[in-house]
Amino acid sequence: MLENTIAAVGPLDEPAMTAARQLQARLTKPAGSLGVLEELSVRLAGLAGGCPPPVPDRAAVAIFAGDHGVHAQRVTPWPQEVTGQMVGNFLAGGAVVNTFARQAGASVTVIDVGVAGPLPVADPVDDVDAPDSFGPAMPRLVSAPVRRGTRDMTVTAAMTRQEARAAVEVGIGIAGDLVDAGAGILLTGDMGIANTTPAAALIAAFTGVDAVEATGRGTGVDDPTYQHKIEVVRAALRRHDPDPEDPLGVLAAVGGLEHAALAGFVLGAAARRVPVLLDGVIAVSAALAAAAFAPDSVAAMVAGHRSAEPGATVALRRLGLTPLIDLGLRLGEGTGALLALPVVTGAVRVLHEVATFDSAGVAEK
Amino acid sequence: MLENTIAAVGPLDEPAMTAARQLQARLTKPAGSLGVLEELSVRLAGLAGGCPPPVPDRAAVAIFAGDHGVHAQRVTPWPQEVTGQMVGNFLAGGAVVNTFARQAGASVTVIDVGVAGPLPVADPVDDVDAPDSFGPAMPRLVSAPVRRGTRDMTVTAAMTRQEARAAVEVGIGIAGDLVDAGAGILLTGDMGIANTTPAAALIAAFTGVDAVEATGRGTGVDDPTYQHKIEVVRAALRRHDPDPEDPLGVLAAVGGLEHAALAGFVLGAAARRVPVLLDGVIAVSAALAAAAFAPDSVAAMVAGHRSAEPGATVALRRLGLTPLIDLGLRLGEGTGALLALPVVTGAVRVLHEVATFDSAGVAEK
Repeated sequence: MLENTIAAVGPLDEPAMTAARQLQARLTKPAGSLGVLEELSVRLAGLAGGCPPPVPDRAAVAIFAGDHGVHAQRVTPWPQEVTGQMVGNFLAGGAVVNTFARQAGASVTVIDVGVAGPLPVADPVDDVDAPDSFGPAMPRLVSAPVRRGTRDMTVTAAMTRQEARAAVEVGIGIAGDLVDAGAGILLTGDMGIANTTPAAALIAAFTGVDAVEATGRGTGVDDPTYQHKIEVVRAALRRHDPDPEDPLGVLAAVGGLEHAALAGFVLGAAARRVPVLLDGVIAVSAALAAAAFAPDSVAAMVAGHRSAEPGATVALRRLGLTPLIDLGLRLGEGTGALLALPVVTGAVRVLHEVATFDSAGVAEK
Repeated sequence: MLENTIAAVGPLDEPAMTAARQLQARLTKPAGSLGVLEELSVRLAGLAGGCPPPVPDRAAVAIFAGDHGVHAQRVTPWPQEVTGQMVGNFLAGGAVVNTFARQAGASVTVIDVGVAGPLPVADPVDDVDAPDSFGPAMPRLVSAPVRRGTRDMTVTAAMTRQEARAAVEVGIGIAGDLVDAGAGILLTGDMGIANTTPAAALIAAFTGVDAVEATGRGTGVDDPTYQHKIEVVRAALRRHDPDPEDPLGVLAAVGGLEHAALAGFVLGAAARRVPVLLDGVIAVSAALAAAAFAPDSVAAMVAGHRSAEPGATVALRRLGLTPLIDLGLRLGEGTGALLALPVVTGAVRVLHEVATFDSAGVAEK
């Protein structure tokens, strides 16, 4: 499944991009006056292989949730059971991601890819492509645990290669299911207490920067915890010395289950030529893995926002992506991606709806 | 009317802001993790005078349209009749602002405050608070011309003080009508070929920067036209030497009818304690006038985006506002404000909808 997905990822379609540039020039506005939105519309035409590309409606947020053995190293003051409690909050509709998803008309699917503790809800579903999958319906839970949390990466590999592959394939499967159900755009979400620690390790491993550049304060840890967190990331990298040319090996050594699943989710979107809107530092660390698996997958990625985590900026620079929004968010869950969604939708709707100079009877300069 | 409106503008309510900060701290997310959105929610509570502040729904874009005598100085390659033609395009729903308004569920009201040529439409309305005023209904035209375009500010004052006052009061009236009709947030829009030239003159007059810092390329003029445009702005400022302590005098000397109306629109929103989401360089030049009339009016202003026009950044800095979005837009019409609207709405909805640690049974650190 992973190899077939990688093989299905291809480059942008140049004729469609040329057609989008030509259409932009005929619309009733000064050339270039929509700035980044014009470039984005051209790239999405290239991804779809036609102009105009489909409006990215029926947006679907997938929140991959997992726990982390490295939590034992005290890299965060939050107890590990908060991961499962927040999954309950997502399913009850009480988290920020739910508010933003309701506002944007996006569906929310929570995927338990490896929460350690018990989940406070009773009815997981495994059919994400039911007819009522989109819009204001309640969030759904998909139970797909690969293992009940990773191992402590400072002691041993976080996962086996087989577990990492299984998590990646969970993400690929979810992406495919959501696209089959009609999603025009996929949004990354994540939940996992301590998950900025493996994200920092992934970013350092894939980009080669030092742990100090890749590591941030996550939920807002104090100075001693922050210094300790950097040392934990450094120790894990020293122990495993992961090879950035071997993304499955990197994920297994220092990743998280949700990071691996998100890498697959991004690959799955790219393989289906559907845009994937990246949230914050967890998403972009996973996107580095996706890019290592299939460099052309970057063509499907849209950076939703610039997380306050410094590692996010390191990763975005390596991916060559400029985020749409920069508001100092550091919450995760998919919140930054959801705030950026109207920009993406608007960029494409312009190609569908705006009158041309000819059709509107507006003079040109 | 102007004096009464100025008198009604007051400062933010501190107890409401304290209540909003305390509520933010109890919501199920790390403290501060929503970055700018948290600060914004606190300010909007202070504006409303209560916590949570009302959700800014029933958003209303007001596009003030006018023509400019300084067009005769060849500051733009676009013919003047495009102003009226674009009004027709707005009313037919074919412009970018219409696409973004439909997407955001915002109403669009076009106000002819001084278009020079004939308008290509037949049925202006003057009742903007009809029951169907919001949502996907077609845009409406309000006919309120103060004069059929300004005079050439390089030759004489653009308007008389009486005309400037009348235009300001058109804007105050529209803001009041839209709030009466239920608008929870007002968005600024503008249309007027050559209107970045008076905007630059206003920004230079109110902030004291040189014409070269306040003047941009507008729709994208070439180098010779750009140099000439700077000289035109400089010549107008030299001729009139407007006093920044006399905003009506500044507007009359070097403003535009839509700029004056937008200054009133901002004042009207502030007087009603309803947030006003500013679009680009035309809006922020008018906002400087509003701030000169009533310094506390800044409390009601939310900067939607950072226009590519350099003068916009000069004005935002003076106003002390940080824009929500920075995507290189330079279209006007209200497009940048509309793209930022979901950020504002989301910031407030968080206060209404997100569960607290207690209510959701989520542990704290």
